[in-house]
Amino acid sequence: MEPLDTHISRQYNVDLENIRTLVLQMGGLVEQQIEHAITALVQGNVTLADAVIVTDYKVNSLEVTIDEDCNQIIARRQPAAGDLRLVLMVIKTITDLERIGDEAEKIARMAVQLANEERPKNNYMEIQTLGTHVRHMVHNALDAYARMDTIAAVRVAGDDRQIDKEYEGVMRQMITFMMEDPRTITRALHVMWAARALERIGDHARNICEYVIYQVKGKDVRHISLEQMKKEVGEGS
Amino acid sequence: MEPLDTHISRQYNVDLENIRTLVLQMGGLVEQQIEHAITALVQGNVTLADAVIVTDYKVNSLEVTIDEDCNQIIARRQPAAGDLRLVLMVIKTITDLERIGDEAEKIARMAVQLANEERPKNNYMEIQTLGTHVRHMVHNALDAYARMDTIAAVRVAGDDRQIDKEYEGVMRQMITFMMEDPRTITRALHVMWAARALERIGDHARNICEYVIYQVKGKDVRHISLEQMKKEVGEGS
Repeated sequence: MEPLDTHISRQYNVDLENIRTLVLQMGGLVEQQIEHAITALVQGNVTLADAVIVTDYKVNSLEVTIDEDCNQIIARRQPAAGDLRLVLMVIKTITDLERIGDEAEKIARMAVQLANEERPKNNYMEIQTLGTHVRHMVHNALDAYARMDTIAAVRVAGDDRQIDKEYEGVMRQMITFMMEDPRTITRALHVMWAARALERIGDHARNICEYVIYQVKGKDVRHISLEQMKKEVGEGS
Repeated sequence: MEPLDTHISRQYNVDLENIRTLVLQMGGLVEQQIEHAITALVQGNVTLADAVIVTDYKVNSLEVTIDEDCNQIIARRQPAAGDLRLVLMVIKTITDLERIGDEAEKIARMAVQLANEERPKNNYMEIQTLGTHVRHMVHNALDAYARMDTIAAVRVAGDDRQIDKEYEGVMRQMITFMMEDPRTITRALHVMWAARALERIGDHARNICEYVIYQVKGKDVRHISLEQMKKEVGEGS
C-alpha cells in the first residue's frame, strides 16, 4: 500500500486522513458506549443507561457522515487499487461500528430493566467479566485498524473464540439459575440478552480485524478458519 | 438514474447486469435457507436442518464473489453518481444477505436442538407464523430491490414493525411457559433464539429497503422514522 502522503493532490490526502480520523472518533465513541452500558448494568445506574440510549444517535450520525464522505471520495477522486480498498474498507467498518453501537444500546435497555429486579449476590460479575473482555477486543481491533497491523488483527480475531466460550458459560449458568429458582427467570433472561449482545459485539470486532487483513494483504479472509487466516498473513509479515 | 443500456461500453452493461443477477440469485438462496430452516424446526427434520447448515457456505461464497466483482467494477470503470451508488448499494445489500444466511443457519441449529425435545402441543405454530411473515418480508424486499420500487420499499420497511410486535408476543408467551413449567425452560429458550433470529432477519430486510430508497432518491433514510421515510419518498413518486 502506498503511504498516504504520496498523492499528487494535497486535498486528497486531507480527505483520506479526515475519514480515518472520523472512523477512529466513531470507534472511540462506540467503546465508550459499551463501557457505560456495562457499568450501568452492573451498578444498576438508570441515568447512565438512559445516557447510552440517547447517545446512540451520535454513532448513527457519524456513520451517515463518513459513508457520505466515502461516496464523495470515490466519485471525485476515482481512487486506484490500494486507496479504493481503503475507502471500501471504511464503508464496511462503520457498518460494524454502528451495529456495535446498537448492541451497546440494547445492553443499556437491559440495564434499565434489571434496575427494577432484585440484585444477584454476584453483582452481575459474569457481565462485568465478559464485558471487559469484549471492550478490550473492540479497542484492540480499532488499534490494529489504526496501525494497519495484520499480526495484531489476526490475534484479536482469535480472541473471539475465548469470548464465545465465556458467553456459552454465562448461558449455561443462567439456565441453571432459572431451573433452580423460576422466580429468577426474568432476571436471568435479561442477563442472557446482555451477554448475547456482548457476544455479537465480539463478532463485529472480528469483522473489523478481517477488513484490516483484506486491506493490507488484498485477500478476503472472511468465512475462513483462524488457521487459514494466520497462513494468509504469513509468519514474518 | 440512467437506464443500464445507455453506457458506451457494452461490457460495462454486462458487468452491471451480472452483478444484479448474482445479488438476486444470492437473495433466492437466502430465502430458500430461511424456508428450509423454519420447516426443519417445525417438522423436527434434522436432515433438512443439517442441509441448511451445510449450505451456508454457498451464501458466504456468493458474498465474496459479488464483493470482488463490485471492487473490480469500481476500479476499472470508475462509475459516476448513479452507477456508483448502485455498486455501493450492492456491497451493502450482500452484507445483509450474508447475515440473513447466518441467522437462517442459527434457526437450523435450534431445529437440531429442538428435535431432541418433546414437541409442544401447538407444533411450534408461533415460529411457523412469525417465520412465514419474515420470509415474505425478505421476498418483498428483494422484489423492491429488483424493480427499484421505492413505494414498495417503504411499505416493506414498515412491515418490520409488525414483525417486532409478533416477536415480542412470542417472547412473552415463552416466558409464561417457562414460569408455569420449568421443565420447558430449555425448549422455550431454543424457541426464543429462533424467534430472535427471525426478528433480526426482519431488520436486515428493512436495511435492504433503505438501500433501495437511497439508490433511487439519493437520500440516506437510515436511522429515521417510517413517517420521515414516507416523506422522503414523496406521494406521487
